[in-house]
Amino acid sequence: MHGAWLESGQVRFRTDLPALVSTPAERRVEVLFAGVCATDLALLDGYMGFAGVPGHEFVGRLVDGPGAGTLVTGEINAACGVCPTCLGQERPLNGGPLDGRHCGARSVLGILGRQGAMAAELQLPSANLRPVPAGVSPEQATFAEPLAAAFEVLEQLGDVRGRRALVAGDGRLGLLIAQVLREAGCSVDLAGHHPERTPKGITGRCGLLDEPATPALAERYDLAVEATGRPDVLQRLFAWVRPRGTLVLKTTSAARARLDLSPVVVDELTLVGSRCGPFEPALAALASGAVQVDSMIHATLPLAEVDKAFALAARPGVLKVLIDCR
Amino acid sequence: MHGAWLESGQVRFRTDLPALVSTPAERRVEVLFAGVCATDLALLDGYMGFAGVPGHEFVGRLVDGPGAGTLVTGEINAACGVCPTCLGQERPLNGGPLDGRHCGARSVLGILGRQGAMAAELQLPSANLRPVPAGVSPEQATFAEPLAAAFEVLEQLGDVRGRRALVAGDGRLGLLIAQVLREAGCSVDLAGHHPERTPKGITGRCGLLDEPATPALAERYDLAVEATGRPDVLQRLFAWVRPRGTLVLKTTSAARARLDLSPVVVDELTLVGSRCGPFEPALAALASGAVQVDSMIHATLPLAEVDKAFALAARPGVLKVLIDCR
Repeated sequence: MHGAWLESGQVRFRTDLPALVSTPAERRVEVLFAGVCATDLALLDGYMGFAGVPGHEFVGRLVDGPGAGTLVTGEINAACGVCPTCLGQERPLNGGPLDGRHCGARSVLGILGRQGAMAAELQLPSANLRPVPAGVSPEQATFAEPLAAAFEVLEQLGDVRGRRALVAGDGRLGLLIAQVLREAGCSVDLAGHHPERTPKGITGRCGLLDEPATPALAERYDLAVEATGRPDVLQRLFAWVRPRGTLVLKTTSAARARLDLSPVVVDELTLVGSRCGPFEPALAALASGAVQVDSMIHATLPLAEVDKAFALAARPGVLKVLIDCR
Repeated sequence: MHGAWLESGQVRFRTDLPALVSTPAERRVEVLFAGVCATDLALLDGYMGFAGVPGHEFVGRLVDGPGAGTLVTGEINAACGVCPTCLGQERPLNGGPLDGRHCGARSVLGILGRQGAMAAELQLPSANLRPVPAGVSPEQATFAEPLAAAFEVLEQLGDVRGRRALVAGDGRLGLLIAQVLREAGCSVDLAGHHPERTPKGITGRCGLLDEPATPALAERYDLAVEATGRPDVLQRLFAWVRPRGTLVLKTTSAARARLDLSPVVVDELTLVGSRCGPFEPALAALASGAVQVDSMIHATLPLAEVDKAFALAARPGVLKVLIDCR
């Protein structure tokens, strides 16, 4: 089987990967497109110690069995299904119940203990797969996974209608989160460096986080989302959130740094770590057009040029790079 | 007036402080005892850039006017009273409404823009003062402020009955927080180095956080409170909190460090900064005996020996040092 192989800080195209074998518990998917995500770039830098086929944003067609040929995308956490977490018996103080996304025995497509999507085929449990709704193109459907991660913010924060929100970062993830918060009824400001990208109904605040600042109370936000991956931006965001306000950490890269969390204590901020989210609202938003993704596709490269695709996705200012796996 | 003076990394006794003058808006209090807090030690290290009379944990008697002679303690944040925060018009996502504790124009007794309690007299707005309930000794009443800070955790987290809680630190603040969580119906473990201090109904877990660990899910806690002031302990606590669990940051000193918050993102933890709390439940818990503080008093020194009192309070293993201001 052909596919990408990531190991020791390199990603390359291979044609000698072992073919996947159908099992009763899992379905094979012929991959059409896979998206390159910041997490994939982090894997290249050693994150999670992953070696294997990368890729967790995908769209493809069921290979055999019932519904063969159906266009699907999928939830990337393959859970054990039988532990208290998977059975919905875990009810944390901060919402819940938990589900397989937090299963302690989970494997994660292209990230942890499971080969990923940048190959001719992938394999996932049936329960993970979601049919792509009518009217959503295959390319749009590759955004289901990062868009689900954007919807996770809503799942965690609850009712945000009428709130002033700041999204830090007008990259791939920031543009999705900003649109999701707008649709949820927030007044959204977007801090970045690309005013031309600002989605409709959102206020661009270019350069807002380029310098340290001590904004007046009225300028500060009810909630903010860190989607830049930059520790200096995370540090500056503390000043832009109102007392007892909420700051969502959406990237792991911004989180590894020398930080001064004392503003978090003094202003009693709440920091909420946020990872994978629900696919249903993401697919619905793609189908209804509530969230627009077409303009975010920077380029589509063939799988044989996966190394170039990663290099391109790592360039500052580049949005989504898709890999054509056909 | 005599009192302590903190400036340029030194604290010393002075007898030449200007006498306080009564104003219509504020009451004078003749201070009986003041407690030395970790924040006072941090001020000595330059925290908040404070110079002046330190001290914010106190008990004293109203000097003149209605109720003169009444034994009082007091809320340390002196708020403007007229801004939207003070008027209760700020309702953050994470609970609320806010009150004067978050007033942007506040002064804070012995910490920010206001002379503190380690003197013959202090001054605070009437609204800040709280009569000490019958049956609470003056020495016990000096714990009202740190105990209020412990109750702040409950105000922020809501119903914690039946939850497994870990308190990191069996120092002054940790012992208070552990008792408050126990009274709120948590099953409380206390990680520290002084097994003899473990309050009744609480499980001592000495050394639990001395080494990095990857505890099994069943061992991890629904909530944890950082009350050590040590960044390495804060970092290790992330592993001890269950997915989507809550970690309360109760010290600013642990918060200024090189941290890796990526476990916060991956496990979707919630970090809650926590500062000053409500006095009413604190005074009630002292009056009922629900929270015990007598054994926490390490020594009581005269105000003239304030430098020794600070040095003693800074010694590892020393609990509360009181200053006799009479």
